[in-house]
Amino acid sequence: MTRLVIRNCSVLVVPVEGECRVDEYQDILIEDGAIAEVMPTGAVAAESGLEEVGATGLIAVPGLVNSHTHSPMVMMRGAAEDVSIDDWFNRKIWPMEMNLTPERVKVGARLACAEMLLAGVTTFVDHYFHADQIAAAALETGIRADLAPTFFSSTGADGREAAYEAAREIRRMGQSAARGGSPRITASLGPHATYTVSEEDLRRTAEVARAEAFRIHLHAAETADQTQSSKDRLGATPIEVLERTGVLGAGALIAHGCGIVDSDLPILAKHAARTAVAACPKVYLKLAMGPTTPIKHLQSAGVAVGVGTDGAAVHNTLDVWESLRLLALTQKQREQDAEWMTISDTLRHATRGGAAAAGLSDTIGAIEPGRRADLALVDLSAPHCQPVHDPRAALVYSVRASDVVTVVVDGNIVVRDRHLTNANLDDILQDAKATAHTLVDLSKGGAVQHYAP
Amino acid sequence: MTRLVIRNCSVLVVPVEGECRVDEYQDILIEDGAIAEVMPTGAVAAESGLEEVGATGLIAVPGLVNSHTHSPMVMMRGAAEDVSIDDWFNRKIWPMEMNLTPERVKVGARLACAEMLLAGVTTFVDHYFHADQIAAAALETGIRADLAPTFFSSTGADGREAAYEAAREIRRMGQSAARGGSPRITASLGPHATYTVSEEDLRRTAEVARAEAFRIHLHAAETADQTQSSKDRLGATPIEVLERTGVLGAGALIAHGCGIVDSDLPILAKHAARTAVAACPKVYLKLAMGPTTPIKHLQSAGVAVGVGTDGAAVHNTLDVWESLRLLALTQKQREQDAEWMTISDTLRHATRGGAAAAGLSDTIGAIEPGRRADLALVDLSAPHCQPVHDPRAALVYSVRASDVVTVVVDGNIVVRDRHLTNANLDDILQDAKATAHTLVDLSKGGAVQHYAP
Repeated sequence: MTRLVIRNCSVLVVPVEGECRVDEYQDILIEDGAIAEVMPTGAVAAESGLEEVGATGLIAVPGLVNSHTHSPMVMMRGAAEDVSIDDWFNRKIWPMEMNLTPERVKVGARLACAEMLLAGVTTFVDHYFHADQIAAAALETGIRADLAPTFFSSTGADGREAAYEAAREIRRMGQSAARGGSPRITASLGPHATYTVSEEDLRRTAEVARAEAFRIHLHAAETADQTQSSKDRLGATPIEVLERTGVLGAGALIAHGCGIVDSDLPILAKHAARTAVAACPKVYLKLAMGPTTPIKHLQSAGVAVGVGTDGAAVHNTLDVWESLRLLALTQKQREQDAEWMTISDTLRHATRGGAAAAGLSDTIGAIEPGRRADLALVDLSAPHCQPVHDPRAALVYSVRASDVVTVVVDGNIVVRDRHLTNANLDDILQDAKATAHTLVDLSKGGAVQHYAP
Repeated sequence: MTRLVIRNCSVLVVPVEGECRVDEYQDILIEDGAIAEVMPTGAVAAESGLEEVGATGLIAVPGLVNSHTHSPMVMMRGAAEDVSIDDWFNRKIWPMEMNLTPERVKVGARLACAEMLLAGVTTFVDHYFHADQIAAAALETGIRADLAPTFFSSTGADGREAAYEAAREIRRMGQSAARGGSPRITASLGPHATYTVSEEDLRRTAEVARAEAFRIHLHAAETADQTQSSKDRLGATPIEVLERTGVLGAGALIAHGCGIVDSDLPILAKHAARTAVAACPKVYLKLAMGPTTPIKHLQSAGVAVGVGTDGAAVHNTLDVWESLRLLALTQKQREQDAEWMTISDTLRHATRGGAAAAGLSDTIGAIEPGRRADLALVDLSAPHCQPVHDPRAALVYSVRASDVVTVVVDGNIVVRDRHLTNANLDDILQDAKATAHTLVDLSKGGAVQHYAP
């Protein structure tokens, strides 16, 4: 048995409901990657075989979950600015993605894993091409990931089936200890969106998901315009399409959902136990997508909501601290209610909500006995956080990702004193710099898809 | 003559209009606190009496300006969360401010100056009580500041005149080299707001301002509700009140202005040369204040707009990087136009716009010969900024305040390798921690003012 104790930290306790609290002077005992006990400091005696991490003055926070991203898109960071959503897809990103190769995806995924781990993001829920390369980067760096291989209906039945097979392969990678796998790696099915995948293909996806116990991660109801267009084109809202094709029945993570309307709520409520929505508020502001995700309504329907960054080609970071802060701010604005989306609720969305988005509600998302040990130790001693009248407020409204000192995933120390333990950051950065120009080259023409939702 | 050269940096060039650009491999020569030349690296030879700062791989950015803040309110950071704007004023902040003393204001101001300098904020435009203490903190730490001593009409003619006298004293502090003063310190008159200061007092303030060449810094038209209330109560919008009392004629910095309406624009246009507006977008989201500052309209009226944090009791940081990013994001949202508030315009608001807000349009805000040497050297090499397809995009959408390495104000190195050079951060933090509880003590009752705009 491996044993690790985090000594003398404060602990952010995020209950299932109600206010978060901070317990001071605690030791966190981790055994075989799971949290065994959280006890007042000193209750666990030092002994041989017990690894110790001193954490005096630090606050232990459940590892943040990036509930929706396309991690390798860090390679296009800053390459598609000040453009409409149409131009972003049709003149920038989908033409750029003609340049994707397994090797380039791997380079981007390693950089993304580095950025996230150093920021205290312990899990990411990804949707992209060449997802086996992303799985390899996650295995190497030590982060937890759920990976959905992306497909469009435009690539035909072959493309669709190949994407399912990629999900199966990632599942096998996660399960095969002999190949360096880890249960940290899971897979979902990844139809791109209700506007790029046919109902027939969604139906087939739902069948495969049910037969093989996959969840389905896809974009739906991203804007009010998309919802209207879906009604015009298909006679149904995107959520109604997901219901009638069996996707909601199989269990879905819906990215964005800003266009979810009142009539969708009873449908979502019916499937609430196996549905989650990922909100990425920076993106909705930056692309001027209209009102943000209706979390108040989703909450009334019992649907879990996580926080995500989406890809860095629009979000420009994979910083979930930034996302959770914007979640709080934009939700207060959306409801015109400064008392809504409290600090406690915000922290819950970024942790327990993210766990639900990752399909790991019972496994991660809180520092409590029995859960996998995914956590970040955060330093609130810098001037931008001081004085600390309320550490929970500091975590939502003052902290920077650079305040994360040490990160544990599945009981392993993956960041120690602000440095990756499993990968060489200089190598990762050098590869990214050397490769970056190949991703934004538009000389070859074409596009992986056309945006006309 | 003192001479300093910043060696081999990239330089963010922010023109008066049009796109910003980045010039690589430059030396910035600073003589007696002013920028003398910006030249290709190596054009300035090393010589005795020439101090050198190596900046290879760093980007020099005009020092950011915090265009509106109440710096000592860092002492209430995190102490007034998830409350309505009414409760924020009437149940939290204005009762807490019964605890203000010169000593406590000084402790807060020193912490605020430390936080801002370490983040590359080289100038702040402040509005608060005991402003002489803030001036002292600015003089000590080396930051540039314009300070407006706050008053309400509720404190009577004595309070009003005492605030004017405080402004005169701060002006003298700035001017008196014998007392350790510096032209870095300037003063403005600080009536609190159109809803807390009578028209008679605004008129008197405008007279003093004109007679003694002060500018006037005040809150006005903070929300659409305030504008409506002003029309109901006074038969005029807040901007109309500022015009008819002579405040606009004297020259004003208007904080927030979210409630500025179309009919105000011709009035503002008439006074555009001596008017600026400070936008603090995080605050409008957090307090659910409705639509953000109408910058597109202000721009059409020719009014300069700076970016501010407001006090940390609502903004929770004094991080202008955060504010400028939110400016871009919320402006795109306000206009529902992702092509509006470009990267270049955003950077211009945070630099040249801030210079105008500080009344220093010709003195700071750009790295060009003849201006005072206020700049920050920023490191974009960390994974959250890489790869860098566009360093301007990185500055707006990816960078963290912790990426600021070295800061120069008025030609003096005030932050070197992420450390203050003029003040002891440990002492500042210790004082803040020891004092913090005294500011949030509500046991004495009372309030400095009542919010009923």
